[in-house]
Amino acid sequence: MTVKFKLLLPALAGLTFFAVSARADEGMWTFDNFPSSAVKAKYGFAPDQAWLDHVQKASARLSTGCSSSVVSPNGLVLTNHHCVVHCAQDLSTSKLNYVDEGFTTKGVSEEKQCKGMQAEILSKIEDVTQRVKDAMGKADATGTIKARDAEIASVEGQDGCKGDAVRCQVVNLYQGGQYKLYTYKVYSDVRLAFAPEIGTAFFGGDPDNFNFPRYALDSAFLRLYEDGKPAKVADYLKFRTDAPKEGDVVFVSGLYTMKQLGMQRDWVLPVRQAINSEIRGRLLGYMQLGEEQKRTATDLLFGIENTYKGNAGRWRALMDPNFMAKKQAEETALLKKVSSDAKLKKELGDPWADTDKAMTAYNNIYLPYEFLEARPGLRASSLITFARNLVRAADERAKPATERLREYRDSELPAMERRVTADNPVYPDLEKMAIETWLLKTREYLTADHPAVKNLIGKESVETIAANLVNNTKLTDAKERERLWKGGADAVNASKDPLILFFKKFDPDARAVRKQYDETVDGPLAKASERIAKARFAAYGDKVYPDATFTLRLSYGAVKGWTYQGVTVPAFTQFAGLYDRATGSDPFKLTPRWVKAQSKLTPTTSFDISTTNDIIGGNSGSPLIDAKGQVIGAAFDGNIHSLGGDYGYDETLNRTVSVTTPAILEALRKVYEVPALADELEGNSTGSIQ
Amino acid sequence: MTVKFKLLLPALAGLTFFAVSARADEGMWTFDNFPSSAVKAKYGFAPDQAWLDHVQKASARLSTGCSSSVVSPNGLVLTNHHCVVHCAQDLSTSKLNYVDEGFTTKGVSEEKQCKGMQAEILSKIEDVTQRVKDAMGKADATGTIKARDAEIASVEGQDGCKGDAVRCQVVNLYQGGQYKLYTYKVYSDVRLAFAPEIGTAFFGGDPDNFNFPRYALDSAFLRLYEDGKPAKVADYLKFRTDAPKEGDVVFVSGLYTMKQLGMQRDWVLPVRQAINSEIRGRLLGYMQLGEEQKRTATDLLFGIENTYKGNAGRWRALMDPNFMAKKQAEETALLKKVSSDAKLKKELGDPWADTDKAMTAYNNIYLPYEFLEARPGLRASSLITFARNLVRAADERAKPATERLREYRDSELPAMERRVTADNPVYPDLEKMAIETWLLKTREYLTADHPAVKNLIGKESVETIAANLVNNTKLTDAKERERLWKGGADAVNASKDPLILFFKKFDPDARAVRKQYDETVDGPLAKASERIAKARFAAYGDKVYPDATFTLRLSYGAVKGWTYQGVTVPAFTQFAGLYDRATGSDPFKLTPRWVKAQSKLTPTTSFDISTTNDIIGGNSGSPLIDAKGQVIGAAFDGNIHSLGGDYGYDETLNRTVSVTTPAILEALRKVYEVPALADELEGNSTGSIQ
Repeated sequence: MTVKFKLLLPALAGLTFFAVSARADEGMWTFDNFPSSAVKAKYGFAPDQAWLDHVQKASARLSTGCSSSVVSPNGLVLTNHHCVVHCAQDLSTSKLNYVDEGFTTKGVSEEKQCKGMQAEILSKIEDVTQRVKDAMGKADATGTIKARDAEIASVEGQDGCKGDAVRCQVVNLYQGGQYKLYTYKVYSDVRLAFAPEIGTAFFGGDPDNFNFPRYALDSAFLRLYEDGKPAKVADYLKFRTDAPKEGDVVFVSGLYTMKQLGMQRDWVLPVRQAINSEIRGRLLGYMQLGEEQKRTATDLLFGIENTYKGNAGRWRALMDPNFMAKKQAEETALLKKVSSDAKLKKELGDPWADTDKAMTAYNNIYLPYEFLEARPGLRASSLITFARNLVRAADERAKPATERLREYRDSELPAMERRVTADNPVYPDLEKMAIETWLLKTREYLTADHPAVKNLIGKESVETIAANLVNNTKLTDAKERERLWKGGADAVNASKDPLILFFKKFDPDARAVRKQYDETVDGPLAKASERIAKARFAAYGDKVYPDATFTLRLSYGAVKGWTYQGVTVPAFTQFAGLYDRATGSDPFKLTPRWVKAQSKLTPTTSFDISTTNDIIGGNSGSPLIDAKGQVIGAAFDGNIHSLGGDYGYDETLNRTVSVTTPAILEALRKVYEVPALADELEGNSTGSIQ
Repeated sequence: MTVKFKLLLPALAGLTFFAVSARADEGMWTFDNFPSSAVKAKYGFAPDQAWLDHVQKASARLSTGCSSSVVSPNGLVLTNHHCVVHCAQDLSTSKLNYVDEGFTTKGVSEEKQCKGMQAEILSKIEDVTQRVKDAMGKADATGTIKARDAEIASVEGQDGCKGDAVRCQVVNLYQGGQYKLYTYKVYSDVRLAFAPEIGTAFFGGDPDNFNFPRYALDSAFLRLYEDGKPAKVADYLKFRTDAPKEGDVVFVSGLYTMKQLGMQRDWVLPVRQAINSEIRGRLLGYMQLGEEQKRTATDLLFGIENTYKGNAGRWRALMDPNFMAKKQAEETALLKKVSSDAKLKKELGDPWADTDKAMTAYNNIYLPYEFLEARPGLRASSLITFARNLVRAADERAKPATERLREYRDSELPAMERRVTADNPVYPDLEKMAIETWLLKTREYLTADHPAVKNLIGKESVETIAANLVNNTKLTDAKERERLWKGGADAVNASKDPLILFFKKFDPDARAVRKQYDETVDGPLAKASERIAKARFAAYGDKVYPDATFTLRLSYGAVKGWTYQGVTVPAFTQFAGLYDRATGSDPFKLTPRWVKAQSKLTPTTSFDISTTNDIIGGNSGSPLIDAKGQVIGAAFDGNIHSLGGDYGYDETLNRTVSVTTPAILEALRKVYEVPALADELEGNSTGSIQ
């Protein structure tokens, strides 16, 4: 009954690096360690290596933080609408709103580039664990991060990693248990081929988000280009035209972002929620001012609401005593195993106590780190991010790769350059709002007496500072950003741009707390985590999957609904349900196209689908794949119970929600009237690429 | 290390009914059980009964939820500015803004009534514990609340409780350990005599709120009237003209509202914070639209920010492992005492287990109860509150007093009537925003599929519903509200007002969950609490003070700063510090009057002051009193550490913050140039009342 938050969370941090059981449909498995025999035993089918290789090479990660799959030999890519909504918004103007109206083409020549977006396909995996561990072993706790990052930068700088079309990235698996070098083929010309209206893609809006039954056509198509032409690809997934059956085995191939656990995240979630809520309130009010305000803020509101609801679900899971008790039991079991092995125990020391110590250190610097360096929920401003990246990149690029902050190492710079220099619209009102919010929150949490706050705000009003920065900066111009990026330290240091000056003045405070964080929190944690990973390997071998790291994984499961508090939710929805649920008012309003198409549609066509795949953030857009390797849907959401899946999977309740391929196909033909695209997906010779 | 949230919170609920130690300057003591010997031992002075009686009769509670003190024989009352800001806002127009400009008069004839406000002075306390307990004893757990409330209504209906100038109220002390009948003299004509500018009263704004050093003149004067003339009062506190010294013993006489603890409150705080944050974001954006928007939303924003920050501090205290460990130790000690007394143990059963059960029941109905009945943070709409009170009062008043919901019993109705019928401005934009927020949040948390949500929202958009209700209701007219109140059920049932119809349709859902709450949560909790109270009396006798219940209490302490993380904060600020801290920008901008007066003011005059008094919400406006019974300040805040004081007091850190009388006097004479008021306070014959 003793309550110790401080102990709780390191325990959790230790526990959730990877789960220990593969009996349930749990796990985000790497393609080189897929639990085929467990899947075979349960579902009578397991993918062989050829199947796995094919799916791996037909899966693409998008720089927007989404997954996707290649679905035609001409580089057509299936993902979620919410993975391209930002692009649709960037392509829109006050006259032409692709977010509200959808984006369709008469052929490839009308496809439009998503500036700054790139797609990466994993081509090779090499083990570099020993090199990285050796480097870390030579450093003390405070120098751990520096040593590790230097070695990683060195690995990534090797031959075979050069050029714009390749990206080498060292991936940390099992929380320091393994380091692997992932090599990607990079596509940096990605174009929008099709997007439905947001009212269709996100039917039900925030109220229905993370809920099921669901009637959202959350899908979109991009196309990969090379040399200005649709890319020819060897590996693509066949687009299945009919729906799977209840109980069928299905796979999701996609990315999973690591949700860092630990007491801070838990303690911190409500702080971040409060900030997101305040921004949400601002946006809701702002969007009522007029059509143009509504249009320009739509994408941002969507992101904020989605983050908010996801965090709320995660927080709720962490507050569930049963859930926590289960976690505790797992932790206790591991501790017991370690204790019973004298040699292991001696070798490991007490990494849990070290984790606890690092967490205490984090507690002490949490507020300045959060507001000066991490800036959660405060990244809504593009300008702030531009200025920060330009100022920091100017400093960091002048250093050898092995000496830099890790987000400025060579494997990261090309994508950052693309983001900084992409010529997308900047919305001044939203920029001001974001900057104001950041400054206000920083002052609120650190108090007006904190030296960094005095440095940031001084004697001016927050509103004046934000207005001056946004009205007078030239960073709204992509050409100017490109000039500064290419000009490096000389150009940035010579710049009199108010935003650049603002960040140059502020950055030493942020860097100071970042250094403290790397040395006293992240470093000791990395050392401790590695030893906990060792304990897990010793106890469970490789019957575990690594923590999510925004790298490609495969999960398995079955088509299945669920029962909660006596209510059974079926696995499928159909087109008919969409029309039943429609109210005529946002966010339950049908778009004119769907109203018009009603009589042409088959009411029983399967629409959205619930499966037992273990899903967490970052695999939006992932293909849902059947045993034959055909794509049968695009995963776009989890149910509300799945949000706790970031910390642990519960097969009875956690569900992945996907939009199915038959729904997409029928909508393309009958609602959007783009038969060429449908033909291309069905592999007909009359497809959109002649 | 086992983590059980479910167990944690009932434990807390039990623990915090009242604290067990009076060694520290802890406690909000009743006037009939003041720990005089403990105070005498520590400070060499203890108030005698005459002192206590005098202070009791010079203390007034305001219907705005504040404390105050009578400071002249002509009914002048000292309270905080933030206790009258709502009145100043109601009295303002787009032409004349008393909130920004302050409110001063040339004499009593210019004092303006605060409509709907009343003041109550406690005149008599009688013990009615046995009557109430007997009634409760005859009921089972689900009927407990009904039986208790019926008996209370019956006690309050006795002779001596009739008439507009008297209010009888049964008070529950020691969480069901005692019931006392409090009789008040009621003043229902209360007028504003003086208010400084909000920029002066709330100098430092939200960033400085709950912080110290502080430079806020958070004080104001009201005057009690009888028969249209300033009331003549026998008991008033002398206004001390100089500042106390560091270490002097001081007292705070005021109200304390009960902050219900328990796992729900803990679980719930972040939900409420998210809602408050969203409203805050809306208001911040809205107030940027223009001067009139800023003016009309100022009071609401102030309230939201204050609530937000207070809750944040409370939540932080509950998340502090050391704090929780201390609470746990206290709980364990009490359990041990009970276990060692076989007779007591048998008599009590296991009230902690019963509390746990009630908490589980609460968990199950928490969301509907919160959003349909409690509506936290969603009360920003006056219209919603009017409609709800009119609809419910119409039903409830038709029943015998003993059958009603407790907030509609006879002792509550006159004040409710005053609030419903007071002719204060209603701001349509803010009303729409509040109604939208309530509906959106209710749908968000209960989901679109909840029957009550369908009933509330149906197929319309939330924005349309809110606009229709606000644009078409006649409840904006005080005369119409008065007609409906006086007309009772007949008038309300005949009304076609859209807001009335809306609430009539919705109310059955809200009442259903309220009934469930009273029967399965509140009732069992009341029974369990009473037994825990018994355990505490058995263990600690009356060396404890009862939980806060918005009834008059007295706390003691000393003038003292504090030291936290190596930083020492002195007990006093002075006028000079105000000018040092001023920046020229909100919220650190001096008003023109203070800029002008700078050279006339004595820089070393004591401004705000920190004392060790145990303070929680509800005692805003309380007089800070010296050993001679003179008022030396008005308590307006606590430091950030004191927010945890809702759950437990820490003498090293918890501080009450007051504005001192010398600062008020000097400001009245030199800044506001209202010498008559200063003279009246100093007892000069040339005072404002001739």
